[in-house]
Order: sequence, then C-alpha cells, then structure tokens
Amino acid sequence: KKQYRIAVIPGDGIGKEVMPEGLRVIEAAAKKHGVDVKFDHFDFASYDYYEKHGEMMPADWKNQIGKHDAIYFGAVGWPAKIPDHISLWGSLIKFRREFDQYVNLRPVRLMPGVPSPLANRKPGDIDFWVVRENTEGEYSSVGGRMFPDTDREFVTQQTVMTRTGVDRILKFAFDLAQSRPKKHLTSATKSNGISITMPYWDERVEAMAKKYPGVKWDKYHIDILTANFVLHPDWFDVVVGSNLFGDILSDLGPACTGTIGIAPSGNINPEGDFPSVFEPVHGSAPDIAGQGIANPIGMIWSGAMMLEHLGEKQAAAAIVGAIERTLGERTLRTRDLGGNADTTACGKAVAEMV
Amino acid sequence: KKQYRIAVIPGDGIGKEVMPEGLRVIEAAAKKHGVDVKFDHFDFASYDYYEKHGEMMPADWKNQIGKHDAIYFGAVGWPAKIPDHISLWGSLIKFRREFDQYVNLRPVRLMPGVPSPLANRKPGDIDFWVVRENTEGEYSSVGGRMFPDTDREFVTQQTVMTRTGVDRILKFAFDLAQSRPKKHLTSATKSNGISITMPYWDERVEAMAKKYPGVKWDKYHIDILTANFVLHPDWFDVVVGSNLFGDILSDLGPACTGTIGIAPSGNINPEGDFPSVFEPVHGSAPDIAGQGIANPIGMIWSGAMMLEHLGEKQAAAAIVGAIERTLGERTLRTRDLGGNADTTACGKAVAEMV
Ligand SMILES: CC(C)[C@H](C(=O)O)[C@@H](O)C(=O)O
Ligand SMILES: CC(C)[C@H](C(=O)O)[C@@H](O)C(=O)O
Repeated sequence: KKQYRIAVIPGDGIGKEVMPEGLRVIEAAAKKHGVDVKFDHFDFASYDYYEKHGEMMPADWKNQIGKHDAIYFGAVGWPAKIPDHISLWGSLIKFRREFDQYVNLRPVRLMPGVPSPLANRKPGDIDFWVVRENTEGEYSSVGGRMFPDTDREFVTQQTVMTRTGVDRILKFAFDLAQSRPKKHLTSATKSNGISITMPYWDERVEAMAKKYPGVKWDKYHIDILTANFVLHPDWFDVVVGSNLFGDILSDLGPACTGTIGIAPSGNINPEGDFPSVFEPVHGSAPDIAGQGIANPIGMIWSGAMMLEHLGEKQAAAAIVGAIERTLGERTLRTRDLGGNADTTACGKAVAEMV
Repeated sequence: KKQYRIAVIPGDGIGKEVMPEGLRVIEAAAKKHGVDVKFDHFDFASYDYYEKHGEMMPADWKNQIGKHDAIYFGAVGWPAKIPDHISLWGSLIKFRREFDQYVNLRPVRLMPGVPSPLANRKPGDIDFWVVRENTEGEYSSVGGRMFPDTDREFVTQQTVMTRTGVDRILKFAFDLAQSRPKKHLTSATKSNGISITMPYWDERVEAMAKKYPGVKWDKYHIDILTANFVLHPDWFDVVVGSNLFGDILSDLGPACTGTIGIAPSGNINPEGDFPSVFEPVHGSAPDIAGQGIANPIGMIWSGAMMLEHLGEKQAAAAIVGAIERTLGERTLRTRDLGGNADTTACGKAVAEMV
C-alpha cells in the first residue's frame, strides 16, 4: 500500500492556526479509510522565515518539497510587514509557475448553515466548479514603461496565450465536465472587446469541444457572466476561464454562496510531474490572527480536495460530508458564521463526524 | 435661451421600440422645465442601414452628428445577421474612440419595485456610480499571432495605459466623488497579479488622490471587489476602473440591484469637444423585438443622464423621480418586472408623472 508524503506549510497568520485542524481531520479520515499519510513540516514561505533569512524560501526549496505527493498550504502574506509582490510572488506564484500547476480549481457550492447574500437560494441550488488557467494569460511579465515622468508616459503589458497553455486547461475543464452528471461547460470570454487574445481563446474552445460531443457548452462575455453568477448561479456546472477571468470568478462564485471564508482551492499539476498545492481561499488575516477564532473549514475542505487528487475518493467524500454536518449545527460553527465554537472545537467536531 | 440639438439613433431591435418613449418623456420634462430640445433623426448604426449600404454608417457620419449637443442612442447589434465586431466596432466603439468619449458612466442604484437578487437590501441601501475608462487599457488593437497552426502557436495582446488616458478618467472620478455627500472613491486594481500596468494605475490613483484631500479613497483587487459588490454593496460611492474592469463592474453592479434591463449609461466626452452618447445598458434583444413589451426605462433613464450632462439638472431629476414612482406601481411596470404594462403604457406613465 502506498504511503503518501505530504509537505505541510502553515505560512503566516491564521494559516498556522487552521493547519493543525486540517491535519487532525485528514488523520481521522485516513485512519477510518485505511489511507497511509505522512506529514513533513516546513517553516518557509512565511514572514517568520523571511525575517530570519531575508528571503521567502531557501535556495533548494524545490529539492525539499519537489518530490512530495502534495503540498498542504495554510496562507501566506502579511502586507503590513512585507509587500505582496515579495511574499506572494516569492512563494505561492512561484509554486504555480515552477511546479507547472496550470489548473486552479475551486468549488462554488451552497452549503447548509452558511448565510448566502443571494435571496431565495438553498443548498443544492448552487454547485459548480471554476477552472482557472494558472500560469500564463494576463499574468505575464512582458511589458514596460516609456517616457517616464513626462506627459507622454505610457505602460504596456502583454497578455500571452499559448496553444499549449490554452489547450491543456480546456482539456482539463472538458474532462471534468464530462465526468459530472450535467456534462455542461461554460467558457468565460470577452471576444467582443478584447479582440486578439479572446477570439483565440474562443477558437480553441470550439476546437476542443469537437472532441467532447457529450458535453454541452456555451460561452458568455465576462461582464454578463459575472452578472449571471448573481442572477442565475444555478445555470453553471463547470466554468473555465483565463488566469484573470478565473481569478475573478473564483472569488465572486464563493462570495455568492457566502463561503469565501471557508472555500478551498487546488493548484494542480494534473500530470503529477510536480506536487500540487492545496490551500484555503482565505488569506492569512493578520487582524484576527492569534485569537484562536479563525474558521478552519477552508483548510479542512482543501484537505479533502487533496485526498481526492491523490485518488482517495472515499476519504475525501467523508470529509466533505463531515463539513456539511458540522456547518448544519450552530454550536459547532465558528463566529464568522454566527456560531460560538473556536478553531479547535470546530476542527474536532469535523474530525469526529468523519 | 439655448436650443439643444440632439441626434437620435434608434438602431436595432427593441432600440426602435423604446426610443419613442424616451423622446416622449424628454419632451414632457423639457416642456415642464422650460428646456428647448430639437431632435434630428438618423437611421444609420443599424442592421437595416447595413443591409442597404453594406456598411454601418455613411462615410461622413462625423459631419452628420459631430456638431450635435448629444447623441441619444437606442441599441445596436443583431448577432444572428451580422457579427458583433462589425456592428459594434462599426458604430458604438467608433463613437467612443473617435468622439473621445473617455468616460463610461453608469449608476448602480436599488430602485423601488425592482426585485433584487440580493437578500435583505432595500432602496436607499445601494446607490453608487461606476466610472469606466472607455478608450484604451485592455481594449487595444496591438498584438498578434505567431507560429499559426503549430504546437508553438501563441497570441499576444497588449494592455496600454497612457498617462493622459489614466489621469483624465481618474480626475473625472475624483471630481464626481468630491461632488457627492459621501466623497468616497474606490479604485479597482489587480496589482498583485498584473504586475506592470496595474501598479501604474495604482501609482496614478495615489498621485491624483493628493489633489483631492477631501475625498476618502481605497482600492480593492478586482477579484475581491466583485465579491464585495455582492457582500457589501453599501460600501461604495464612486468606483473607478480600467476599460475591462469598468466593463465588468458596470454589468455586475446593475445585476446586483436587479436593474440590468433598466440601467442607463453615458459615453461621455467631458470637455464637450465632441457629442456624448447616452444609451440603455440593454442590447437590441432580437428575441423580444416587435412585440411591444420591452421595458423603456433604460432608454428613459438615459435621457435623464443626457439632460444632466447638458446642465439641465431639474429636468433630469424630474425624470428620475418619475421613474421611481412608476416602478413603485405594479400596474405601470412592464412584464420583465412582474407588471403587465406594455412599452407605450409604461412610457406614457413616466411622462405623465414627470
Ligand atoms: C459590446 C461590448 C463591446 C461593450 C464593451 O465591452 O464595451 C459592452 O459590453 C458595453 O459595456 O458597452
Ligand atoms: C494573491 C494573488 C496574486 C492571487 C491571484 O490573483 O492569483 C489570489 O488572488 C488568488 O486567487 O490566489
């Protein structure tokens, strides 16, 4: 039987507080379902490490965590002490690029007991995935500034879409759609305004769709698509978008289900050439760090996504089920959801229900 | 006393049906408030014109409408008959560029009698403006494709931000914020991911803010900003964004207030060197055209924005007040809002209440 080796990186702020609960729940699920996991702990990709060493990660970080089966990540960033472009681009964005985690995957699901800002929606009504391209597109480093400090000053930045980059994310999204009961894919575009890259995206979607005759697909311009997330969240099953559009939709989607604080995410290298990173959508939240009140559900749910990715579907499903039951009970919820449990109590409750 | 000359372009589909109601209400308000308006009618920027002449507009379109005080525009586009890049880029986008309408302005306001998809929000809770840069940014025409039809194929498209372009839209937005009771401006950015153009945008916002010490300002990355439109729409007063971010936010905002079908917009050249275009946010809606059931409120409200732009504040306010009273009464609303009035009945009702 395979032993999974997981690199554990708590990071900053509440990342350090929710991580133990994530590990607790994974251990409970692993024990129950006969999964063998071993955790290796790392202190880099954090402000503490940066303060000591003057950099976010050691030079040999790839050797240290590059052979693990997955990376379980808390949260990174502490804007008051260190600029985002050092902390994030020096850790999370580096993982995405250098471990070729070209899929960013996030569920949008209305959960029991979670207040939604949308009127008249109940659990079951909203249940889809956002699939985001995670390595190229609008997040390029090509561009620059000319005529600085004059009236003629201008900046440019290129959006770059490669055939390789676009086709592989579309393939992942179509595969996912094909595996789901509704078999429905929605593509985010803006080809009526962004007249070179976005028509190319549309063209590749059309070509890929031909290989998936069983998948119904449609496309919306990003402006009306964000509107439809609010007006018709029940229309969606799998939504695929470029790096920027996926980024927007995978914050807006969870917001519509009231779950932005508890949503999980995976930064996935589907081929398994490199480890994938699983992390809660929430950040390090310095304002509430140290009080033991953070909601550990995002961390725990990310653990379920990690087990699913490793092929341990039963253990993953057990965790999601335990999350749903916990959220259903007011006394087990943390304060952000109107309950009164602290981080540990909530984590223990989920672990017991697994 | 000045006579205002308005170029009237109904365009396609329901544009032709809602235009008479817009004119009816403007005439009523003008009469009541002693405003002298003269309408000149044009049939171009429509599919009918295109069918006859093989182009969207005559060669001398700028001579024909370039000296008017404003352009009152219905809707253009009929995707089943003519591709968007011909119909839209051949009319609306041309106006924006060639008449240097660098401001796209849209209200986000929760109106009485309009069902909102957000829970527990009432009229008065949501009332802000989206100010969108309308000429440059992500909507550039610089870029291209290399290695076509091979595995190495890629496309690029540049986002272009000029000091002139960024500063003038920020100035407009700060002026607007300064004129409002809350004096609050929010800038849409994504400088943590789009690492060249967006930090430049932030830099110019900071520089401009120094000139407006009375305006409180903040900024959000576009991902969490869309989330906050849903979670905290009461936080906003004036929201300013690039061409793409403004496009997204000015569809999402109206969607949050349930008013996407009745929202107005202005494409404005603030200096008055060229006429500005006022049009409803909705399109030509070929599916419901010809039935007389379209909601004329977007057209009418755009008329109010036009009068406001011309400096006729009383007449403009009278129209907005009449719209609010009409929407409050079920029998005067069109079907899309759960009423049973037809286009003409709704338009007449507003005209009478002006
Ligand atoms: C039709 C399209 C090109 C246009 C835009 O993106 O500018 C529209 O969405 C708008 O907001 O006016
Ligand atoms: C922090 C930021 C660079 C990042 C992104 O835009 O990718 C974040 O918003 C995310 O979604 O993971």
